[in-house]
Amino acid sequence: MAEPADEALRAAVLGPPGPAHRRAVAKTITLLESTRADHRARADDLLNALLPHAGRAVRVGISGVPGVGKSTFIEALGLHLTGLGHRVAVLAVDPSSSVSGGSILGDKTRMERLSVDPQAYIRPSPSSGTLGGVAEKTREAMLVCEAAGYDVVIVETVGVGQSETAVAGMTDCFVLMQLPNAGDDLQAIKKGVMELADLVVINKADLDEDAATRARAQITSALRLLGTHAHVAAQVMQLSARDGTGVADFWAAVTRFRDAQQASGRLAARRHEQDRAWMWERIEAGLRERFRQHPAVRQALPGLTLEVRDGTLAASVAARRLLDLMDSKEPN
Amino acid sequence: MAEPADEALRAAVLGPPGPAHRRAVAKTITLLESTRADHRARADDLLNALLPHAGRAVRVGISGVPGVGKSTFIEALGLHLTGLGHRVAVLAVDPSSSVSGGSILGDKTRMERLSVDPQAYIRPSPSSGTLGGVAEKTREAMLVCEAAGYDVVIVETVGVGQSETAVAGMTDCFVLMQLPNAGDDLQAIKKGVMELADLVVINKADLDEDAATRARAQITSALRLLGTHAHVAAQVMQLSARDGTGVADFWAAVTRFRDAQQASGRLAARRHEQDRAWMWERIEAGLRERFRQHPAVRQALPGLTLEVRDGTLAASVAARRLLDLMDSKEPN
Repeated sequence: MAEPADEALRAAVLGPPGPAHRRAVAKTITLLESTRADHRARADDLLNALLPHAGRAVRVGISGVPGVGKSTFIEALGLHLTGLGHRVAVLAVDPSSSVSGGSILGDKTRMERLSVDPQAYIRPSPSSGTLGGVAEKTREAMLVCEAAGYDVVIVETVGVGQSETAVAGMTDCFVLMQLPNAGDDLQAIKKGVMELADLVVINKADLDEDAATRARAQITSALRLLGTHAHVAAQVMQLSARDGTGVADFWAAVTRFRDAQQASGRLAARRHEQDRAWMWERIEAGLRERFRQHPAVRQALPGLTLEVRDGTLAASVAARRLLDLMDSKEPN
Repeated sequence: MAEPADEALRAAVLGPPGPAHRRAVAKTITLLESTRADHRARADDLLNALLPHAGRAVRVGISGVPGVGKSTFIEALGLHLTGLGHRVAVLAVDPSSSVSGGSILGDKTRMERLSVDPQAYIRPSPSSGTLGGVAEKTREAMLVCEAAGYDVVIVETVGVGQSETAVAGMTDCFVLMQLPNAGDDLQAIKKGVMELADLVVINKADLDEDAATRARAQITSALRLLGTHAHVAAQVMQLSARDGTGVADFWAAVTRFRDAQQASGRLAARRHEQDRAWMWERIEAGLRERFRQHPAVRQALPGLTLEVRDGTLAASVAARRLLDLMDSKEPN
């Protein structure tokens, strides 16, 4: 922490709420998201300085396909929580945002009331390429928000690819939002998302209460068959985000779940495992990147790839040759 | 191919069937499975020399939980095929064999009649640690068997961990064997194995024909809901490996599937993609190994891991520090 500017930033993030504090949080996260090496070095120092103050929030992941009503639900939940005196940060993991050009949280008008609530901080998904990269930035932003005193962090994700796994891997309670229709649950089972869920919420229960009740029974029985959560049964509940019905019950369920996890020591174990997995995920991504950037590898890779494709070189032999090239002296 | 001994080995593998040919195949695979660096270098040369003669077999993967009747079925299928004039190699991927001390195919008495059939070659699973390592050896053994003229290669695996993915990733037609009871299919869906299946076989249909018929209908509808195989619908069939009922139909289905794949160009695309994925899987395993073996990393890893665990260092920062250490000069 050499730079005086960063020292001031750290103090402001840790300081009392207000416009200057908000700006400091935003500025710190922007620094974390920068791809410049000098920014990255400063961000690492800042992150380590903030780390002792992080970790105290309830981390909630919320996932669901587009149209399930995530924004409406998160806004209702966020307002409920700030009304109870909590400070709420809303982050997102959306690896598609760099492709589509717009983040799922880019348009703050989606959460009009929450975005002007002084006790809430909404940050759109970083849009930096790979899922691993996007998840890393969100995870680091979460630590900053925690150090800044936000005691509830909500991480939203759409149901694309492996983003649910990433979000479940950074939260204390992972919530899957479902629509009240059959088939939706099978898709979630297929994608392995159902297994990640600590809570399953059937939204839009007001539209068709019978269908919602049937869906709830189906999902409950599927979860039983899947045999997940041997110790803590995943709970399935119905609500209507639009009407605000069930939001208080939802938060009570999250709190109950987290308290039980904390009492049993499972929360600490989960967070340790998440940190360990995160470190190795980042190491592997870094190793792949270094491999691809190695001059001798860059030179040989296209040719060897073609030989493998043409069937004149076994894939395993090509892999060994490329790895051996990394030991070679770099050409000048 | 400097060594005259290896030149003789290559010639014998490519030569006419008989006891000497069999021994050469076994010896070549043993060389591939060796962990000695000089053996590995010789094996690589041998593999590349054999490669132009490989690739002509029908590659069938067979997976199913213990007790589903894989050995009985593979023996019946193998005898049926040698009776038709085929030469059949049976290999296995069993990453648990190094733990349990016994391969799923270690005991050839499991396939008593097939193991003495001169037109068949049975090789137990290599028992060298990680799934990636075991799969690599099996894959290389498959290429040797193909070069040796076996025109059907059957790769067996038990339903543990990700071994099904590995076997589906090296075969032209991946078969999932199921028992005629409900719940079994849900487990397969959960584990993502159902999606890999080109053919689903319900064995022991003789025990309870009604249950088998019900299971078949359930699995067919599950496959439809999963939306897999948009172009070629996965087929579900019943058989009894013990009675030999359905074995001829099974082989007809495999042949039909493979012919259709070949005609549409999907077979070539599948094999290319398998080779590409295999190469990258081996590269990533090699990168991880090199990372763990790097002196500076070995020295720093325990301490940094503890710091991450204690919450005094962010996981992403630890990852970056460790990666930076790889650039450092090795201590002498």
